[in-house]
Amino acid sequence: MKITLAQLNYHTGNFELNTQKIIEAINNAKSEQADLIVFSELSVCGYPPRDFLEFHDFINLCLKNVNIIAEQCVGVAAIIGSPTVNPQIEGKDLFNSAYFLADGKVQQIIHKTLLPNYDVFDEYRYFEPNRVFEIVNYKGKKLAITICEDLWNLNANPMYIQCPMDELIKQQPDCIINIAASPFSKVQINTRLEVLKTNAIKYNLPLFYVNHIGAQTQLIFDGGSCVLNSNGDTVKQLRHFEEDTIMVELDAINSMGIILQNKENEIINYQNIEQALVLGIKEYFRKQGFKKAILGLSGGVDSALVVYLAAKALGAENVMAVMLPSQYSSDHSVSDSEKLVENLGVKYDLISIEKTFDALQNTLNKQFENTEFGIAEENMQSRSRAIILMALANKFGYILLNTSNKSELAVGYGTLYGDMCGGISVIGDLYKTEVYALCDYINRNKEIIPKNILTKAPSAELRPNQKDSDSLPDYEVLDAILFHYIEERKGPQEIITLGFDEALVLRTLKMVNTNEWKRLQAPPVLRVSSKSFGQGRRMPLVAKYLG
Amino acid sequence: MKITLAQLNYHTGNFELNTQKIIEAINNAKSEQADLIVFSELSVCGYPPRDFLEFHDFINLCLKNVNIIAEQCVGVAAIIGSPTVNPQIEGKDLFNSAYFLADGKVQQIIHKTLLPNYDVFDEYRYFEPNRVFEIVNYKGKKLAITICEDLWNLNANPMYIQCPMDELIKQQPDCIINIAASPFSKVQINTRLEVLKTNAIKYNLPLFYVNHIGAQTQLIFDGGSCVLNSNGDTVKQLRHFEEDTIMVELDAINSMGIILQNKENEIINYQNIEQALVLGIKEYFRKQGFKKAILGLSGGVDSALVVYLAAKALGAENVMAVMLPSQYSSDHSVSDSEKLVENLGVKYDLISIEKTFDALQNTLNKQFENTEFGIAEENMQSRSRAIILMALANKFGYILLNTSNKSELAVGYGTLYGDMCGGISVIGDLYKTEVYALCDYINRNKEIIPKNILTKAPSAELRPNQKDSDSLPDYEVLDAILFHYIEERKGPQEIITLGFDEALVLRTLKMVNTNEWKRLQAPPVLRVSSKSFGQGRRMPLVAKYLG
Repeated sequence: MKITLAQLNYHTGNFELNTQKIIEAINNAKSEQADLIVFSELSVCGYPPRDFLEFHDFINLCLKNVNIIAEQCVGVAAIIGSPTVNPQIEGKDLFNSAYFLADGKVQQIIHKTLLPNYDVFDEYRYFEPNRVFEIVNYKGKKLAITICEDLWNLNANPMYIQCPMDELIKQQPDCIINIAASPFSKVQINTRLEVLKTNAIKYNLPLFYVNHIGAQTQLIFDGGSCVLNSNGDTVKQLRHFEEDTIMVELDAINSMGIILQNKENEIINYQNIEQALVLGIKEYFRKQGFKKAILGLSGGVDSALVVYLAAKALGAENVMAVMLPSQYSSDHSVSDSEKLVENLGVKYDLISIEKTFDALQNTLNKQFENTEFGIAEENMQSRSRAIILMALANKFGYILLNTSNKSELAVGYGTLYGDMCGGISVIGDLYKTEVYALCDYINRNKEIIPKNILTKAPSAELRPNQKDSDSLPDYEVLDAILFHYIEERKGPQEIITLGFDEALVLRTLKMVNTNEWKRLQAPPVLRVSSKSFGQGRRMPLVAKYLG
Repeated sequence: MKITLAQLNYHTGNFELNTQKIIEAINNAKSEQADLIVFSELSVCGYPPRDFLEFHDFINLCLKNVNIIAEQCVGVAAIIGSPTVNPQIEGKDLFNSAYFLADGKVQQIIHKTLLPNYDVFDEYRYFEPNRVFEIVNYKGKKLAITICEDLWNLNANPMYIQCPMDELIKQQPDCIINIAASPFSKVQINTRLEVLKTNAIKYNLPLFYVNHIGAQTQLIFDGGSCVLNSNGDTVKQLRHFEEDTIMVELDAINSMGIILQNKENEIINYQNIEQALVLGIKEYFRKQGFKKAILGLSGGVDSALVVYLAAKALGAENVMAVMLPSQYSSDHSVSDSEKLVENLGVKYDLISIEKTFDALQNTLNKQFENTEFGIAEENMQSRSRAIILMALANKFGYILLNTSNKSELAVGYGTLYGDMCGGISVIGDLYKTEVYALCDYINRNKEIIPKNILTKAPSAELRPNQKDSDSLPDYEVLDAILFHYIEERKGPQEIITLGFDEALVLRTLKMVNTNEWKRLQAPPVLRVSSKSFGQGRRMPLVAKYLG
């Protein structure tokens, strides 16, 4: 049996586009004499549809499009993902389903059993879990069809009381098919491969895995669909960060050449992170119908990295970089920025904020009488920059890119409505130390980001001779504490036990918790770690714990 | 058996405070010779703890405090709410539990079966559902202890496949006890009472209901704990929007006087909405340790309502109102605002934005050459106001109150980083027509909000002679369409069928969907409807459905 894996880029709610893509792939598969073509989870409507699932109209459109697609399945079968209406009165109204289509009709519907409801996932919000386990029989083969999380209950502390493959294996399937929507993170490529290997080996079956590719705001789907033999070795690998399609003969899998042995892992590296962020920017613009980005260049490393990524994602000709100096800006900030934009070939403008800042100070002269220059004045500068950038964005149709990094978002070292503005936060899931590391990777062959930007001490330049290190601990130490608190969810005592200074740990955790209000109004963050700020981390705002 | 209901205001994560409150109530109950005192859901840690539940340290603090409280339960028993660690390897790591404490120890732990995971609720994110049904035997009585949602599976299309009271009733309990954390909405007081009545009648048992009071950012808990006899009549009613405690003799319930017959409903009215919003503001400030608010007065109805509510919540002496006129502001805007602040006794300042706006226009002179006055210039004015208000807030320790209403948030009729700024959105869950209705209620006895503010045509005053009606349909029609789409989740065809103009419906729904990016960066909204913007409505940002 020839099985085609179709790793495509869907647009949530864009039924016309998604259906057209799926039908085109079905027709190609037919002409290549495939027996079956497999698409990823919720391919009909895109993933994640979120609360659109609560609209009958949206569900009806899903079902209508499933039928349109089914009609094309003559001479080739297909597996597509779509929500299904639960016919039972009790329980939630929907299932998350895989539709098996053949002979122009829906032949069988398999529902998802394990519904992820952690981090960025909310599937139990919408779906009832499956309780009936059925194999699909097709052309003499038995297919165990599973949906994403269904294969993810194998660790030492399983999150679910049931394991769907333990049920399906009783019916002696010939292979496992998993249709997925598994978003990228620095560690996810390896974790995912581990899970797939473990399943192939445990059930001694070849495994076909089809993932999404593309991005939906924060979530970046890296693709990387693959075929494993029953030893857990990778025998086919689809591309990462691009659409891709391959056809594989089921009976040939166990005699095929091995790409990656079941003991090896894929390489984690900054190349992946760079590709993920570039895709994330590109998709945010394309899926909303925008082309051009604007951002403020400070002369620092964060905005330097973002302008590089934006130029790569959108084309240098679509990026407008603006330097907005004040009386506190150092000369090297301007000269470093000029060198950077020259290297990248992006457009560049220099607009002083001095007039605006002066007017504001003048306006508030009476109210601020006898007060000292402080946070209010620093924020006024940062917000003057934002207002100018947003004015240019509004006038000329740019989207403002946010340049905050994860370390500053964590401790609140940024100005709300100032440098925290933007449509999308490009590097808000990279700690400052990772920002430097990614820049080093980008400069590996030649100096694209001027060396001086990477070597000078970080500064917000909002008062004379200011340095980040005046208010924050060394980023090496800060980032380590933040990682243990945010990604690892360790408590203060656990972190102190690792060898960090007690006062510093308590101060850092308090900063993280008391700045929740700022992050709540931050732009969506392109997610590249296992725990990013945004919909995957839901904290109370007025709480008192460690605050 | 004498049962005391303790309706208290907890602070999430503030274990010291919560435990102290609980122990104080236990000691009072003891001195009044109560047999049992009942606290609300997750009383030990506050509700909702959200992702703090993922920290071992947080859970350990919960368990430590449960034991401290248990030690006080000598001579009186208590039911408190706390997370519990799931001893099984399979399934999620926690239960949401009711602890039965007596003789200085934890005697029994009852877990929640039905875990709400819709709208603002995320309980399946953290908790494993209960599967074992146990009655608590105490002093010759059998208590059916349930937790909030456990009683909510009675409608025609139940969300869960199980009904915990159907299991517990088999053990012939003498009463139902429900510990809850049920947030306020305009319709919730009645819906909740219906659910309680239906349970009392169905199981023919008296029912003790203990709810939270207080607010946690968006969520406002209105209390309203009560005791129902086995006919579903209300025989005791605790206060709404205040802490309250009462003691009731279980055996006397069915002979007690009836406050509200099982066929009556509580009255829904603007008094409730006003009290809810006042509590929401008060709690947002108190729980973060702030006292003083600032807001911009435009001369319009939205900011007029917010300054009234703020003065009521925080005291007039803690509210600073600032009028920020431009060349486009009408004279009546200033005079109406002056009359309003005089009526309320709040402090008032008048700061022109003209200098700032001029400086910005000057600064962008070259870039904006040969372009027409438009959205960019309008937004520059709105953002100039925000920057000045935030400067005052930062300098003097105010929190900026946001004054956007639900109609503008829905269609994106507001400036991000401009009038959309603020720590908390006070009336972001009231449609414009509801804003007027609440003002009319406030003015029922005397004119507090000047009549001219309520009768003039709404305008943003960002260009000469601008009116809301230039860009938006009449609010009566707009709000009705928005209600059907947002609260009722009707599709375009369903709304058109109700008699609305097709083009207007499509245009409105498109505005709602394409402005998701603005709402994502809006402040948290005090929730008073069944579907508020914020954590209860989760929409994809780059989707194409109706966009």
